Amino acid sequence: MHDNDPGLDASAPDQGLDVVAVGSAIVDVLSPSSDKDLERLGLVKGSMALVDLARAASLYEAMGPATEVSGGSAANTAAGVAALGGRSGYVGKVASDELGDVFLHDITAAGVVMGRTAPVALGRDADPDADLATGRCLVFVTEDGERTMATHLGAASTLGPADLDEELIARAQVVYLEGYLWDLGPAKTALRRAIEVAHGAEALVALTVSDPFCVQRHRAEFLELLRDDVDVLFANEEEALLLFGVDGFDDALSAVEETGLLAALTRGAKGSVVVTASGSLAIAAEAVERVIDTTGAGDLYAAGFLHGLTSGYGPEDSARLGGICAAEIISHIGARPHADLRRLAARAGMA
Amino acid sequence: MHDNDPGLDASAPDQGLDVVAVGSAIVDVLSPSSDKDLERLGLVKGSMALVDLARAASLYEAMGPATEVSGGSAANTAAGVAALGGRSGYVGKVASDELGDVFLHDITAAGVVMGRTAPVALGRDADPDADLATGRCLVFVTEDGERTMATHLGAASTLGPADLDEELIARAQVVYLEGYLWDLGPAKTALRRAIEVAHGAEALVALTVSDPFCVQRHRAEFLELLRDDVDVLFANEEEALLLFGVDGFDDALSAVEETGLLAALTRGAKGSVVVTASGSLAIAAEAVERVIDTTGAGDLYAAGFLHGLTSGYGPEDSARLGGICAAEIISHIGARPHADLRRLAARAGMA
Repeated sequence: MHDNDPGLDASAPDQGLDVVAVGSAIVDVLSPSSDKDLERLGLVKGSMALVDLARAASLYEAMGPATEVSGGSAANTAAGVAALGGRSGYVGKVASDELGDVFLHDITAAGVVMGRTAPVALGRDADPDADLATGRCLVFVTEDGERTMATHLGAASTLGPADLDEELIARAQVVYLEGYLWDLGPAKTALRRAIEVAHGAEALVALTVSDPFCVQRHRAEFLELLRDDVDVLFANEEEALLLFGVDGFDDALSAVEETGLLAALTRGAKGSVVVTASGSLAIAAEAVERVIDTTGAGDLYAAGFLHGLTSGYGPEDSARLGGICAAEIISHIGARPHADLRRLAARAGMA
Repeated sequence: MHDNDPGLDASAPDQGLDVVAVGSAIVDVLSPSSDKDLERLGLVKGSMALVDLARAASLYEAMGPATEVSGGSAANTAAGVAALGGRSGYVGKVASDELGDVFLHDITAAGVVMGRTAPVALGRDADPDADLATGRCLVFVTEDGERTMATHLGAASTLGPADLDEELIARAQVVYLEGYLWDLGPAKTALRRAIEVAHGAEALVALTVSDPFCVQRHRAEFLELLRDDVDVLFANEEEALLLFGVDGFDDALSAVEETGLLAALTRGAKGSVVVTASGSLAIAAEAVERVIDTTGAGDLYAAGFLHGLTSGYGPEDSARLGGICAAEIISHIGARPHADLRRLAARAGMA
């Protein structure tokens, strides 16, 4: 149920927003799985693979009974910010179908302002086998709580400049971009424009590099973005090593420090390290009774961190809040919060 | 992932089945809620209300972010039997849409043999506002774990005699019927036929009376069924009192004993009572660390009980297995099992 402060109507068009996230709008299809299953299906544990319609269908057929929960990395972050009491918006594209309705319901019910997009249409050069259904991510959750993902982007793959709600983006303090979008030609153009709009509105630009394979695919572009366009970087340890081409975490830290960016590097059970102009600071992970499903851990860490920052907290407190949100999300199935995140934040002294 | 004994291919058409369940095929849409919300929305806590398309849409709009999980009372029971290693089938109707695909995927992936149904079509007398989308149940879950349901039957409301896979039903040891179906005219005719087929094949007929309001709507018919057609009765305490028009549980027990039926009466945290020809027996509830969502508790109790019976266990052990399955289902969101029920059964000495 909606329980946002009635004084903060994020949907009012003149209202400033803390975070506007841009990403692939996806519904997650989560099912328990085993290492043996992953091997048999040719999936690399812990990774995200983009799959075509036929492969998605055959993987779904091989999958056990599942649970559907709205997902999409940046959308999870926007929902997390709203759950913390922040004002957030989201730019992403779904089709006019049942899963699209589910996605739109969930993000709106979470209190996130959804950007206007153009209707879904195939371009002239489109693959005739392309499916314009709402995107979905098959998430195989192993007993250790690790998730392995196969994403069929569907309608999300058509995100382009016409779908960029520039008015919404111009209202943000932070514009948060999903690295996964660099896999898509038209989305890249849209992202370049989002960065222009953000900087024109004096907003910070935050980037998550999303996934180690995504870093491998777009390393040069990501480094260029970090140099010229990005103000805040989110990466996990493995992604940071790949991004900077180093072998150890300390070397990655030094490389991040050299960029001069504000960065949050997550390390799973080892917590996170925040890099600021005045040096690095390690923050321990929150205790978690039992890890059920790590889907969304990085997304919710980013939600907590950005909510902290846009609420006036320093990087250390913000990282702590990131850890609190990540701990909540890995304690249950799905990448959208169940617990009252505001209550968790208040308990940690961050109301 | 499928993990059924390869020796037991329930889909082979000559293979006997332990349980074939007949019911409304539904996808559950579950969301956290509060008593205040229920009141505001005019919903009666703990009940199931049938709603039309417009009311379903307005309730969904008022609902918070949700999780979609296949449901349907009898379908949950069929899935539970399969999860326990039993052979089960299901007769129920979905539309050719995304949620229909989700339902069919989940029940098939659970190892349940799905009966053939006729394509969905509106009859001549159909309500012009009727929606032929796959049925869905909006489930409002309060902090005490109690669930309050508003169901829009959609395609499930068109279940009729043409949808009855008689060959599948004739393979069953037990044909399990959902009381909710008595709300539907064409389904009632189908159920009468299902009972004939079951008895012709020397199968037992089991009935769950589903819900207190359902009992109020169909009390006379249910009592007639118990006298003439039913061999095994499932009811919770409140339903049993209403069914027999008595004020106390002991009177309900006496009334059930008089019917001469095998019956399992569930009492929530107080466990259950099994009534047999040789008297009644109380079975304590399984300990549950924290009740998260009671959706499906009765359905999974029935799964455990019927799996016990069809595996050759006595009523007491079967009731104990029912309690174990119910305890698993109320420990998480959704009415389909997460844990390995066979492992739980084996731990209780019932492999």
